[in-house]
Amino acid sequence: MIRVTVWNENFHEKADPKIAAIYPDGIHGAIAEGLSEYSEFEVRTATLDMPECGLDDDTLNNTDVLIWWGHCRHKDIPDEIAEKVRLRVLDGMGLIVLHSSHMSKPFLRLMGTICRLKWRENDETERIWVIDPGHPIANGLPEFIEIEQEETYGERFEIPNPDELVFISWFSGGEVFRSGCCFRRGLGKIFYFRPGHEAYPIYYRKDIRKIIANAVSWAKPSCGPRPTLGHFPVPLENIRIVDHSDEYHP
Amino acid sequence: MIRVTVWNENFHEKADPKIAAIYPDGIHGAIAEGLSEYSEFEVRTATLDMPECGLDDDTLNNTDVLIWWGHCRHKDIPDEIAEKVRLRVLDGMGLIVLHSSHMSKPFLRLMGTICRLKWRENDETERIWVIDPGHPIANGLPEFIEIEQEETYGERFEIPNPDELVFISWFSGGEVFRSGCCFRRGLGKIFYFRPGHEAYPIYYRKDIRKIIANAVSWAKPSCGPRPTLGHFPVPLENIRIVDHSDEYHP
Amino acid sequence: MIRVTVWNENFHEKADPKIAAIYPDGIHGAIAEGLSEYSEFEVRTATLDMPECGLDDDTLNNTDVLIWWGHCRHKDIPDEIAEKVRLRVLDGMGLIVLHSSHMSKPFLRLMGTICRLKWRENDETERIWVIDPGHPIANGLPEFIEIEQEETYGERFEIPNPDELVFISWFSGGEVFRSGCCFRRGLGKIFYFRPGHEAYPIYYRKDIRKIIANAVSWAKPSCGPRPTLGHFPVPLENIRIVDHSDEYHP
Amino acid sequence: MIRVTVWNENFHEKADPKIAAIYPDGIHGAIAEGLSEYSEFEVRTATLDMPECGLDDDTLNNTDVLIWWGHCRHKDIPDEIAEKVRLRVLDGMGLIVLHSSHMSKPFLRLMGTICRLKWRENDETERIWVIDPGHPIANGLPEFIEIEQEETYGERFEIPNPDELVFISWFSGGEVFRSGCCFRRGLGKIFYFRPGHEAYPIYYRKDIRKIIANAVSWAKPSCGPRPTLGHFPVPLENIRIVDHSDEYHP
Repeated sequence: MIRVTVWNENFHEKADPKIAAIYPDGIHGAIAEGLSEYSEFEVRTATLDMPECGLDDDTLNNTDVLIWWGHCRHKDIPDEIAEKVRLRVLDGMGLIVLHSSHMSKPFLRLMGTICRLKWRENDETERIWVIDPGHPIANGLPEFIEIEQEETYGERFEIPNPDELVFISWFSGGEVFRSGCCFRRGLGKIFYFRPGHEAYPIYYRKDIRKIIANAVSWAKPSCGPRPTLGHFPVPLENIRIVDHSDEYHP
Repeated sequence: MIRVTVWNENFHEKADPKIAAIYPDGIHGAIAEGLSEYSEFEVRTATLDMPECGLDDDTLNNTDVLIWWGHCRHKDIPDEIAEKVRLRVLDGMGLIVLHSSHMSKPFLRLMGTICRLKWRENDETERIWVIDPGHPIANGLPEFIEIEQEETYGERFEIPNPDELVFISWFSGGEVFRSGCCFRRGLGKIFYFRPGHEAYPIYYRKDIRKIIANAVSWAKPSCGPRPTLGHFPVPLENIRIVDHSDEYHP
Repeated sequence: MIRVTVWNENFHEKADPKIAAIYPDGIHGAIAEGLSEYSEFEVRTATLDMPECGLDDDTLNNTDVLIWWGHCRHKDIPDEIAEKVRLRVLDGMGLIVLHSSHMSKPFLRLMGTICRLKWRENDETERIWVIDPGHPIANGLPEFIEIEQEETYGERFEIPNPDELVFISWFSGGEVFRSGCCFRRGLGKIFYFRPGHEAYPIYYRKDIRKIIANAVSWAKPSCGPRPTLGHFPVPLENIRIVDHSDEYHP
Repeated sequence: MIRVTVWNENFHEKADPKIAAIYPDGIHGAIAEGLSEYSEFEVRTATLDMPECGLDDDTLNNTDVLIWWGHCRHKDIPDEIAEKVRLRVLDGMGLIVLHSSHMSKPFLRLMGTICRLKWRENDETERIWVIDPGHPIANGLPEFIEIEQEETYGERFEIPNPDELVFISWFSGGEVFRSGCCFRRGLGKIFYFRPGHEAYPIYYRKDIRKIIANAVSWAKPSCGPRPTLGHFPVPLENIRIVDHSDEYHP
């Protein structure tokens, strides 16, 4: 069972009747609905207007994979909460960063770069090509997905080189964009996925939902060793450790 | 269910009574025994002395992950069979390359490099450090594994930069070695794992068996798209494809 | 001084008057002309119709960076010559692989994958975006280059993940393509660069010539250590080597 | 001409007579002396006790590559100055991070991870193996360097996967460490190099000085495009840009 928390700043849906008409249950509601079809996920939602921005310790400590959608309210997340999210990712929690969340505080802090890009709202067509068809996030997809109208993002996208590049987008206005990027940081896995402007009903699509579900499965925490860190005065060769195999957790 | 074939050249075990005493059922037998504890694996073995070197089409086409152990008999694999193995990997079959199999024909052809290294048989201690504790192949391991006596391998190991580096070995004689290396080629996943000289009973260890089992799970085929390749005369934008989502396989 | 050899199969230019009109001195001639403007390059050309395909030992041993253009005559390179080129790259020679040379024997052998792609001749516009503006191959370029008409290549391009991805192409017909890919193999550096269909006068452009010159500078051999390989029976710790610094070559 | 600034917290040399005896001109002085032998470098030094920590705008804006040594005084760098350094790196300045500077504020902010490691002071031998002999930072080196006595660092080193891994260290006490790591962030290049505990006269060694000089050459700023970022309302296809080549800077 993978415990998923879908977090949303939940602003456009409340401030703009046009967006509310598209996402009456919020973007978080639409994403959670898509994930609820998978019996291996236990899904809850959280929003900025909840106490502690919906990201209290109990929620974070019981989240295996956090999905993040933000746009206009990045600055309303206190630094301490952004830092808690960062540390949870480094400690193993998966993080899926959607669309304009490339400028969210946790993502910026984890990347270390500025993460800007080029953008325009011009109702262009986006075609998302699978570059790495053997990657688990591409499971069950066709070789490309076409979205008739979306906001345009264009390179240069100021990120570190992704550890794995799964998708590249083509836009009818002439741009390309690395739209599916995997990063591994600390014990955690991070997936940035580009589509999802609030003005288009993207998160109801079966293909987009499949990608998000694949990403959740990929980003789930592993159960590797917790390395010893810091001062370690005795050389390990003085400690007889020949076969650790009985201590393993399954 | 992951269908695993453990392939072994099965030479030392028959030619040398000392090795036969260590591996009475062959190295392949010991590895298969370790994997048989996992209910999600369906395990069979194949050896060089079987017809078509044990790698006939039926076997290869029904193998999800192939484990390979070879040392002195690399040249006895006909080029056509090595090429079939290579093509199956590029088509999605996982490949786990053990110890001296770094010089096996399928691995050499998949890497494109010479794949030499430094080596000596000197009964040195090997300590295998987990460099990437968040990697699924490190699941359930301690932060290092110690093997009291092993053959020594040392850098420079002439491989392409691994896509993921999971383990680095320390040897008491002064060498280091990238001993757990992931490569992604075509639709397939390849894991090179260093330990396993025939003169030491390595493949009975619980920790080594755990690593091989983890690698099998990691290397299993995915079910992403089969890209269209070759001449494609009509621009795709003339074909209306808006939502492929009903065609997906699960 | 970097010694550059521009190799061309030189077939279309002789077989087709339309191509001969575009490249009266051959594609190799146009590329060599561009490089001749740089005083740090010593440039020569070689073609398939020369003895030993123009790739005799003397030529290869005196080449720091080899540029390769081939299309219809890949099979006319004997395997032994392809293998010599591969070994020279692994020994440090730079290799720049242009356009349809993705199917040339040396590139295929160095990559280990099938290296197919999608293609059509449809006079589409290609826009080559700089994805990695800090890379030396992007020196002196604008953020994208536009080629009004080119042959279209589309993903999936069956290559190993590049060690560095410098350019991504956008095509007006709806495709994207990783069009500037760096690979490091053995001691050598390899750059694949997509543009250059014989029917368009691409290699006269200043921007394309700048990219090729940048790639030559990037791919030049380094002067690092030649590692000891093979059997090395004495542990190095028994040899007192404290400061090697006087032995260095400059 | 590459303008290099060697920055040092300059604390141990003033607080501890034993360290002052080893580095009478400071660690920065020893490093600068080594670089001064290269005519292509213009070298200056800066220390924590200077105004604005020695990192005023004029200094940073006239630095191509910044070398950083810090240990006990990381917290004495104000956040604003650490942020200025980070932004200069993202804008193209090279950064060479030595030894205990893995915990310096600029490096932590650029990596996004916690960057801890294991350590002890035990006078152990370090052997630094060249893993990537074709890398320019390995130019002129033997296949390994041995330091008779050094502080020990051990994995797990909590960094993002390096873009290029040049060196791996072996320690006599049983540890391995990724001791030469290249990162590319924004337009800048970062090299982490492990050796250099203040209690050992490491920075007088010719081989260590050669590595630092190689790293400076590698990390120098490139002159690629400055991408357009942010809102860009007009699709670029409406702007006729066919050949930018006359606008190039050299």
